[in-house]
Amino acid sequence: MASEKVSTKIGMAPGSLVYVGEEGAADICVSIIQYSRDRYTETTDADLEACRQAISEDSVTWINITGVHDPDLIGRLGQMFDLHPLVLEDMLNTEGRPKLDDYDTYLFAILKMIDYDPGQNRLDHEQVSLVVRPGLVISLQEKPGDVFDPVRERIRKGKGRIRKLGADYLAYALMDMIVDQYFLAMEQIGEQIEDLQDEVIEDPGEEIVQTIHQSRSRIIFLKKAVWPVREIIHNLLRDDTDLISDDVRVYLRDVYDHAIHVSDTVESHRDILSGVLDIYLTTVSNRMNEVMKVLTVIATIFIPLTFIAGVYGMNFDYMPELSRPWAYPALWAVFLGIFAGLLVWFKRRKWL
Amino acid sequence: MASEKVSTKIGMAPGSLVYVGEEGAADICVSIIQYSRDRYTETTDADLEACRQAISEDSVTWINITGVHDPDLIGRLGQMFDLHPLVLEDMLNTEGRPKLDDYDTYLFAILKMIDYDPGQNRLDHEQVSLVVRPGLVISLQEKPGDVFDPVRERIRKGKGRIRKLGADYLAYALMDMIVDQYFLAMEQIGEQIEDLQDEVIEDPGEEIVQTIHQSRSRIIFLKKAVWPVREIIHNLLRDDTDLISDDVRVYLRDVYDHAIHVSDTVESHRDILSGVLDIYLTTVSNRMNEVMKVLTVIATIFIPLTFIAGVYGMNFDYMPELSRPWAYPALWAVFLGIFAGLLVWFKRRKWL
Amino acid sequence: MASEKVSTKIGMAPGSLVYVGEEGAADICVSIIQYSRDRYTETTDADLEACRQAISEDSVTWINITGVHDPDLIGRLGQMFDLHPLVLEDMLNTEGRPKLDDYDTYLFAILKMIDYDPGQNRLDHEQVSLVVRPGLVISLQEKPGDVFDPVRERIRKGKGRIRKLGADYLAYALMDMIVDQYFLAMEQIGEQIEDLQDEVIEDPGEEIVQTIHQSRSRIIFLKKAVWPVREIIHNLLRDDTDLISDDVRVYLRDVYDHAIHVSDTVESHRDILSGVLDIYLTTVSNRMNEVMKVLTVIATIFIPLTFIAGVYGMNFDYMPELSRPWAYPALWAVFLGIFAGLLVWFKRRKWL
Amino acid sequence: MASEKVSTKIGMAPGSLVYVGEEGAADICVSIIQYSRDRYTETTDADLEACRQAISEDSVTWINITGVHDPDLIGRLGQMFDLHPLVLEDMLNTEGRPKLDDYDTYLFAILKMIDYDPGQNRLDHEQVSLVVRPGLVISLQEKPGDVFDPVRERIRKGKGRIRKLGADYLAYALMDMIVDQYFLAMEQIGEQIEDLQDEVIEDPGEEIVQTIHQSRSRIIFLKKAVWPVREIIHNLLRDDTDLISDDVRVYLRDVYDHAIHVSDTVESHRDILSGVLDIYLTTVSNRMNEVMKVLTVIATIFIPLTFIAGVYGMNFDYMPELSRPWAYPALWAVFLGIFAGLLVWFKRRKWL
Amino acid sequence: MASEKVSTKIGMAPGSLVYVGEEGAADICVSIIQYSRDRYTETTDADLEACRQAISEDSVTWINITGVHDPDLIGRLGQMFDLHPLVLEDMLNTEGRPKLDDYDTYLFAILKMIDYDPGQNRLDHEQVSLVVRPGLVISLQEKPGDVFDPVRERIRKGKGRIRKLGADYLAYALMDMIVDQYFLAMEQIGEQIEDLQDEVIEDPGEEIVQTIHQSRSRIIFLKKAVWPVREIIHNLLRDDTDLISDDVRVYLRDVYDHAIHVSDTVESHRDILSGVLDIYLTTVSNRMNEVMKVLTVIATIFIPLTFIAGVYGMNFDYMPELSRPWAYPALWAVFLGIFAGLLVWFKRRKWL
Ligand SMILES: [Mg+2]
Ligand SMILES: [Mg+2]
Ligand SMILES: [Mg+2]
Ligand SMILES: [Mg+2]
Ligand SMILES: [Mg+2]
Ligand SMILES: [Mg+2]
Ligand SMILES: [Mg+2]
Ligand SMILES: [Mg+2]
Ligand SMILES: [Mg+2]
Ligand SMILES: [Mg+2]
Ligand SMILES: [Mg+2]
Ligand SMILES: [Mg+2]
Ligand SMILES: [Mg+2]
Ligand SMILES: [Mg+2]
Ligand SMILES: [Mg+2]
Ligand SMILES: [Mg+2]
Ligand SMILES: [Mg+2]
Ligand SMILES: [Mg+2]
Ligand SMILES: [Mg+2]
Ligand SMILES: [Mg+2]
Ligand SMILES: [Mg+2]
Ligand SMILES: [Mg+2]
Ligand SMILES: [Mg+2]
Ligand SMILES: [Mg+2]
Ligand SMILES: [Mg+2]
Ligand SMILES: [Mg+2]
Ligand SMILES: [Mg+2]
Ligand SMILES: [Mg+2]
Ligand SMILES: [Mg+2]
Ligand SMILES: [Mg+2]
Ligand SMILES: [Mg+2]
Repeated sequence: MASEKVSTKIGMAPGSLVYVGEEGAADICVSIIQYSRDRYTETTDADLEACRQAISEDSVTWINITGVHDPDLIGRLGQMFDLHPLVLEDMLNTEGRPKLDDYDTYLFAILKMIDYDPGQNRLDHEQVSLVVRPGLVISLQEKPGDVFDPVRERIRKGKGRIRKLGADYLAYALMDMIVDQYFLAMEQIGEQIEDLQDEVIEDPGEEIVQTIHQSRSRIIFLKKAVWPVREIIHNLLRDDTDLISDDVRVYLRDVYDHAIHVSDTVESHRDILSGVLDIYLTTVSNRMNEVMKVLTVIATIFIPLTFIAGVYGMNFDYMPELSRPWAYPALWAVFLGIFAGLLVWFKRRKWL
Repeated sequence: MASEKVSTKIGMAPGSLVYVGEEGAADICVSIIQYSRDRYTETTDADLEACRQAISEDSVTWINITGVHDPDLIGRLGQMFDLHPLVLEDMLNTEGRPKLDDYDTYLFAILKMIDYDPGQNRLDHEQVSLVVRPGLVISLQEKPGDVFDPVRERIRKGKGRIRKLGADYLAYALMDMIVDQYFLAMEQIGEQIEDLQDEVIEDPGEEIVQTIHQSRSRIIFLKKAVWPVREIIHNLLRDDTDLISDDVRVYLRDVYDHAIHVSDTVESHRDILSGVLDIYLTTVSNRMNEVMKVLTVIATIFIPLTFIAGVYGMNFDYMPELSRPWAYPALWAVFLGIFAGLLVWFKRRKWL
Repeated sequence: MASEKVSTKIGMAPGSLVYVGEEGAADICVSIIQYSRDRYTETTDADLEACRQAISEDSVTWINITGVHDPDLIGRLGQMFDLHPLVLEDMLNTEGRPKLDDYDTYLFAILKMIDYDPGQNRLDHEQVSLVVRPGLVISLQEKPGDVFDPVRERIRKGKGRIRKLGADYLAYALMDMIVDQYFLAMEQIGEQIEDLQDEVIEDPGEEIVQTIHQSRSRIIFLKKAVWPVREIIHNLLRDDTDLISDDVRVYLRDVYDHAIHVSDTVESHRDILSGVLDIYLTTVSNRMNEVMKVLTVIATIFIPLTFIAGVYGMNFDYMPELSRPWAYPALWAVFLGIFAGLLVWFKRRKWL
Repeated sequence: MASEKVSTKIGMAPGSLVYVGEEGAADICVSIIQYSRDRYTETTDADLEACRQAISEDSVTWINITGVHDPDLIGRLGQMFDLHPLVLEDMLNTEGRPKLDDYDTYLFAILKMIDYDPGQNRLDHEQVSLVVRPGLVISLQEKPGDVFDPVRERIRKGKGRIRKLGADYLAYALMDMIVDQYFLAMEQIGEQIEDLQDEVIEDPGEEIVQTIHQSRSRIIFLKKAVWPVREIIHNLLRDDTDLISDDVRVYLRDVYDHAIHVSDTVESHRDILSGVLDIYLTTVSNRMNEVMKVLTVIATIFIPLTFIAGVYGMNFDYMPELSRPWAYPALWAVFLGIFAGLLVWFKRRKWL
Repeated sequence: MASEKVSTKIGMAPGSLVYVGEEGAADICVSIIQYSRDRYTETTDADLEACRQAISEDSVTWINITGVHDPDLIGRLGQMFDLHPLVLEDMLNTEGRPKLDDYDTYLFAILKMIDYDPGQNRLDHEQVSLVVRPGLVISLQEKPGDVFDPVRERIRKGKGRIRKLGADYLAYALMDMIVDQYFLAMEQIGEQIEDLQDEVIEDPGEEIVQTIHQSRSRIIFLKKAVWPVREIIHNLLRDDTDLISDDVRVYLRDVYDHAIHVSDTVESHRDILSGVLDIYLTTVSNRMNEVMKVLTVIATIFIPLTFIAGVYGMNFDYMPELSRPWAYPALWAVFLGIFAGLLVWFKRRKWL
C-alpha cells in the first residue's frame, strides 16, 4: 500500500496542511444532517458552501466528511469555521494519537474507529476527527463506511433522546458508537483466546504461536486505541468547559465505564495469553522429552546387545565359546535377560 | 451455552433495554422484604405493583429480583422508581464491570457475585446490581441462588444491627456477603497452590501446567472482580453523598479492608504460582538432562567397543591378530579397560 | 494443622465474634504492666476484672493477652473498653491484613509479628492487635512468646524514655520491636541468597531451585507483612489524631524508615534471586550442551568407522580388497585418518 | 572514539567549565539570524562580540553555536548574557539528560537531537541546549548539521507565523523539529519490526536475534530521549512563567501530543518485539524437535534390525537357523515387518 | 569479614548507641576545617572538645569524623550539639537507607558513598551521615578515604563560590561529590555492558552469565543508593526549611538532575542487560541445534548403511546375492546412492 508517512511532514511549518495516510483514497464526500426536535433534513454529496448555509441557531448540524486527503478542502473548512491551524494539521494526519483539545469555543477530538469484520477475521481501523461547537458537529473520516449508521437512523426516526438534545449529545453518541465497536473486537479476541486455550491443551500445532502473536498484536492495538479515550473522557468529566452540558456528562460517564471495561479486559486477556504460551512451551519441552526417551530406551537396549553379537561375529581362530553347542541358546538367554532387565529399570524410572 | 453478547447491542441508543447474558435463564422472580425495628414482612413471587405499594417511610424495603432477561420488567421498574435509562441498560447487561454511580437521589452499583462450589471445584459467577435509596434497596441478580441468605436470616431473626439501621446498612451487608465469598474462592486457590508446590517438588506430571493455568485464570478473574470494589468503596468513603451515614461508613471500611486483603493475596498467590512454573520447567530440563546422560553414557561406552568387534569381524585374508591364541582374551581385556576407563571418566564428570 | 478458616465466617453478621486461626491454641493468659515515672507494677495471669481496676489516670497500663481463640473473653473486653464490634471481630480473625483504623477515641492496629528461628531455619508468624488509648495499650497475640521482652525489660529497669512517656510511646515501642524482627528475617534471606549466588556459580545441584523458591516465598511473605506498615505509619504521621504526640511522631518516622528499608531490600533481594535462577537455567542448558557434544563426537567418529568395518565383514564371494595383503593395514590407516580428521574438525568447532 | 567522559569532571567545583563529549570535534561556528515582521539578516561565522551588538529590542535574535568543546567561548557567552554557571556547565556536558530549568529571566533546556540516516541505517544523536529569553534564543549543538534548516527557511521566506511571533515561538519551532525527527526514527524501527515479524514466521535465521536486539536498544534510546520531553513541556504548560505566551502554549501542546505519541508507540513496539523473540525461541525449539524426531525415527528403526543382522553374523558352530533355506527370506520378512510396524507407530504418534 | 549486624540491635531502646557495621575498623579520626570569606584553618586529629570551641558565628565549620564504631564518641557528639537520640543511633548504624530528616534546627541526612576502583574492578561503599546547621556541617564516614578531597581543595584555595557561601552550600558540595561518584560506577557498568554486547554476538563463553549477573547486581546496588537521593533532594527543593537558602536550591536542582540521570541510565542499562541474556540463551539453543544436526546427519546416513552391511555379514547358508560377482559393486552403488540421496534431503531441509 503506497502511503504518505508522518516523516514526510518533518520540517514543515506547524499547521502545514499535508495529508498523511494511505494514498489512493476514495473520493471526498461531504454529507450534512440537520435536525431539531421537529425538523430533519439530510444532504449527501453536499459542497462546503452548503455547510456554511446549513448552520442555523435552533438546530443541530452534523457535517460528515469522508476522505481527508485534500488539504485544500480542509483549509477551506478551517477558514469557514475559524479552526486553529493545528486542528487542520491533525485532521490531515491519519496517524495521530487519540486526544482531546479544548479550544474554548470548540472541542477537537481524535479517535480511532475500528472496523472489525468477523467473517474475514480482519481488523481494520481509520481515524475519526470531531469538532464540537454549540449546534455543530463536524466529523472527518478516512474512508467510506463507518459505525455511525445507527446514530443516523436514530436521528431520522427521532428515536431516543437525540433529537431533543444538542451537539454535545450527538458527539457523545458518535464516541459511544466507536467505543462500542471496541467491544466487538475485544469479544472476538476473547473467543480466539478461548479457542487457543482449548487447542493448547489438546494437541497444539506450531501455528499456535502465530495465532498467539496475532491476538497479542490486536490486544496491543486495542489498548493503544482505547487507553487515551479514558483520559479524554476523564478530562471532559472533570473539566469546566461549557461545551458539554451536565445531562450529557452522565452519558459520557457511561462511555468512560466502557472504555475502562475494554482496557481491563484487554489486560486480563493478555495475562491469559501469556499463560497459553507458557503451556505451549512446556508442551514442546515435554514432547522433546518423549522423543528423547524413545530414542534412549531403544538405543540403551540394543547398543549393548549389538556389541555382544559383534563380539561373536569376530573371526579369531581361538574363541572357545563358539564351538560349544549350548553357547548360542545361552546367548539368547543373555540377550533376553539384558532386555528384560533394562525394561524393568526403565519402568522404575517411569520412562515407559 | 447460547448467550446474548454485548456486541449485539452495538448501535442501539444509549439506554436501550436489551438483555445481554446467557439465554434460557430461569423465570423472573421478585421478592420483597420489609422491616423496621419492630416489624418484618416478607413476600415471595411478588409482582412489581406490590413493590410500589410496599414502600413506606418508616421501614426499609428490600426488593430482590432474580432474572434480568426481561427488558419490559426492567423498564417498568425504571419508571416506578424514576431510574436513569443508563441504569436500566446496565441492569440488563450482565457483562458489566463492577462500578458505582452516584445519581444524587440514589446510588447504583454493579458487583460480581461468586458462587464457588468447593465440592465440584466449580467457580461460577453472576452479576448483582444494587440501587440504594433512603429506605429502599433494589437488588437484581441473574440466576436463582445467591449468597444473601445469612442477611435474610439476620433480618428475620432481628439479629445484629440490621433491623435498627437503614437501607445503607442493608446495602453494606449485601456487599459484605459478596466480598466474603471472594475469600472462599481465594482460600481454595491458595490450597490448590499449596498442593501444586508439594506436587512440583515430589514428582510433577504434565497435567500440572494445566492446573497452574486454571489457578492463574481464576486469580485473574478474582482480581478483575475485586479490584473495582476497592475503588467503589474508596469513593464511598471519601464521597460527600448523604446516602451513606457515618455509622455505615465504619462498616464499609471493613469491606474495604477485605477487598484489599483479597487483592493483595491474589497478587502474592500469583507470584508464587509463577515460581511453581519455574520449578516445573527446571524439572523438565533436568529430566531431559538425565535422559540424555543415560543415552550418552551407553552410546559412548558401546559404540567404540562395537567398532572394535566389527574390525575383527572383517574377512580380510591377511589379519595377523586373528591367529594369535592370546588375541581374543587380550581383546576382552581391552574391552573391559575401555569400559572401566569411561566409567571413571563419567564418574568424574558427575554423570553417574 | 486443624484450623478455623476465614470462610467459616461467611454469612455472619459483621462483628460476629468467631475465632479464625489455628485450633488447639494454648491457654489464654492475661498480663498487666502498669507504670509511671516512678511507679511500676506487673501482674501475670490476671483476669479481666483486674484490668478494669488497673487503669488509673496518672499511669500507663499495658494489657497483654496471649491467645485470642475465646470469643467470650474478647466480647467482655469489648464491653469493658467500649470497642467497636468490628474491632473485636478483627481481633479474633488471625488472618487479617496489617492495617490501622482510627476510632477517634482509640486507634486499632493489626500487625504481623515474625518469629524467626535461625537455628532451625523456621519462619513463623502470628498476628498482633493493638488498641491504643490515652494511658492504655491493649495487645493481643495468638501464641505464647513474643518479641516484646526487651520493652518489658526497659519498663522494669526504667531504661530509656519509656517510663517518662505515654501510651503512644509504648505502642511505638511495640511496633518498633515487630519491625526490627523483620530485619532479622531479611538478613537471613540475604545470607541465603548470597549462599545461592556462590553455589550457583560453583556446582549447582537440582535442589537449588527449591531453595530459590523458599527464599522467594519468604520474600513474598515479608513484603505482604511490611508493606502495609509503611501505609499505617504514613497515615499516623500525616494524620491529625490527638492520640499520638509530636514527640512520638519523630520515633514513628524511625519505624517508617525501617519499614521502607525492609521493603526496598526485599525488592532488590527478589531481583537478585531471579538473576540466580537465570544463571542456574543457563547452567542446565550448558550442561546439556556438554552431554550432547560428547555423544555427538563419539557417535560421529565411530559410526562411519563401524560402517566400514561392517562392509568388510560382508560375506560376498567376490570382494577383491579382501585378498590384498596390504588391505588390512591400509584400512587401519583410513580408520586413523578419519579419526584424526574428525578430531581436527571438532577442535575447530570448539567442541573439544 | 576518544572522548571526554563525565567522570573526568568528578571533583570539580559546580559550574566548572570542562567539555564532556567526543574529542576532535569540528571547528566552532557561530551564526546569527535576526528577524522581525519585516526585516531579516543572517550572519554566518560571526564572533561573539557580534552577538552582543546584534540584539535589539524590536526583533528576535537566534544565535546558533555549533561545537561546544571550547570552555572559554562558553565562559564568555555566559558573561555576555549573564547565565548561571550551572547552565554553562550543562552546555559543555554533552552527556546530560533532557531537562528544563526556569531561571526566572530565561529558560534553559537540554534536548537530544536525533540524526537518523535511513540509507545507512545509522542512528546518531547530539545534544542541543537552548537558552530562551525575550527576543533571544541561543542554541548550542555538538556537531555541524542539524534538523533546523526548515525553520531557517521559514524565517528567510517569512512563511508561516514565525516572523510574526517572538523568541518563544522560535524555541517551540526548534523543539518541534527535534521531536518530529523522533517520528522518523520511530517509523524506521516500526518497519524493522514489521520485517522481523514477517521473517520470523517464514524462515528465521540466527541473525534475527541481533536485529531484535538492535531494535530494542534503539527503542530504549528513543524512550530515554523522548520521555523527559513530556515532562519538560508538561511543566511549561502548567508553569506560570511569563517567558512563554499563551499563543505559543497551544503549539507546545502539539509537541506534547507528539512526544506522548512517540513514547506510546515505542512502548507498543517493545511489546511486539518481545512477542517476535518468543516466536523465534519457539521456532528454535520446534526445529530441535524436528531434528530429534528424524534421529529417533531412523535410530529406532535400524538399531534393532542391525542387532538382528549382527546375531546371524555370529560364528557359533551350532546355529540351526543358518542352514534353513527359507531362513534368509523369512528374516527379510521380519525386517520389513518391524520396519512397517514402527512406521505405523510413528505415524500414530504424529512424528511423521 | 566479621561484622556487627542490624539484628544485634533488636530489642534495644530506640536511640541505643550500638555500632552496626564491619568490625576491626580503623582508628577514629576527627578533623576540623573552618573558613570564612577571608580566613581558613584546618585541624587534623582534633578531639571533640576542640570542635565545640571551633564554632564561631561568622565562619563555617566542617567537622569530619572517620570511623563511627565508638558509641561513646557519638554520644558525646550528640550532647555537644544537642542531637536527637535517633540521629545518633542512625550514625552508628552503617546499614541505613539513604534519607533526610528535618529536625527544625538542623537537617540530618544519610547517603551511600561509593568508592569505585576501576583498576581492580572493585565497587566498595560506605555510609556518610551529614548534620547541617547554620554555620556547621558534621560529616561522619565509616572508613578513611573519601571523595571529598576536591571540596577540601576548593576551600583551601578559595576556588569557586564555596568560601563565600554558608554551611548549606558546603553540604550541597559534599552531596554533589557523592552523586558524581555514582556516574563513575555507572559509566563503568555501561562499558561492561557494551563489552558484553560485543562478546555475546561474537563467541560468548559460559562465564558471560556471571558477568551479566555481576553487572546486574551492581545496577541493583546503584539503584538502591541513588533512588532515595531523588526523594531527599525533591523534599529539600519543595520544603520550606530555612536551613537551605534559595541560592543553594539552584545547586541542589543540579544534583537532582544528576540523580535522575543516574537512575534513568541504570534502568536502561538493565533493559539492555536482559536483552544480552536473551541473545546468549538463544545462542546456547542454536548451538545445541547445531550439535544435534551433526549427530542426526551422521547417524541418519550411516545407521541404515551399517544395517545393510550387517545383513550381508550374516552367515546363512542360502543367501543367493552373496555369490553374484556384480553384487558387491552393486551394493557400493546402493551405499553411495543412499548417501547422496540423504545429503540432498538434508540440504533441502537446510541442515547442511
Ligand atoms: Mg510540524
Ligand atoms: Mg492535550
Ligand atoms: Mg491509518
Ligand atoms: Mg469511514
Ligand atoms: Mg457504549
Ligand atoms: Mg450503547
Ligand atoms: Mg452502561
Ligand atoms: Mg455472566
Ligand atoms: Mg464511574
Ligand atoms: Mg462516578
Ligand atoms: Mg443469583
Ligand atoms: Mg466481610
Ligand atoms: Mg474486619
Ligand atoms: Mg463478616
Ligand atoms: Mg496465622
Ligand atoms: Mg482503613
Ligand atoms: Mg505470641
Ligand atoms: Mg526499629
Ligand atoms: Mg533510625
Ligand atoms: Mg560537578
Ligand atoms: Mg529541574
Ligand atoms: Mg553524545
Ligand atoms: Mg549538529
Ligand atoms: Mg511536530
Ligand atoms: Mg498536532
Ligand atoms: Mg531500635
Ligand atoms: Mg523521613
Ligand atoms: Mg556497610
Ligand atoms: Mg571514608
Ligand atoms: Mg554533580
Ligand atoms: Mg548540571
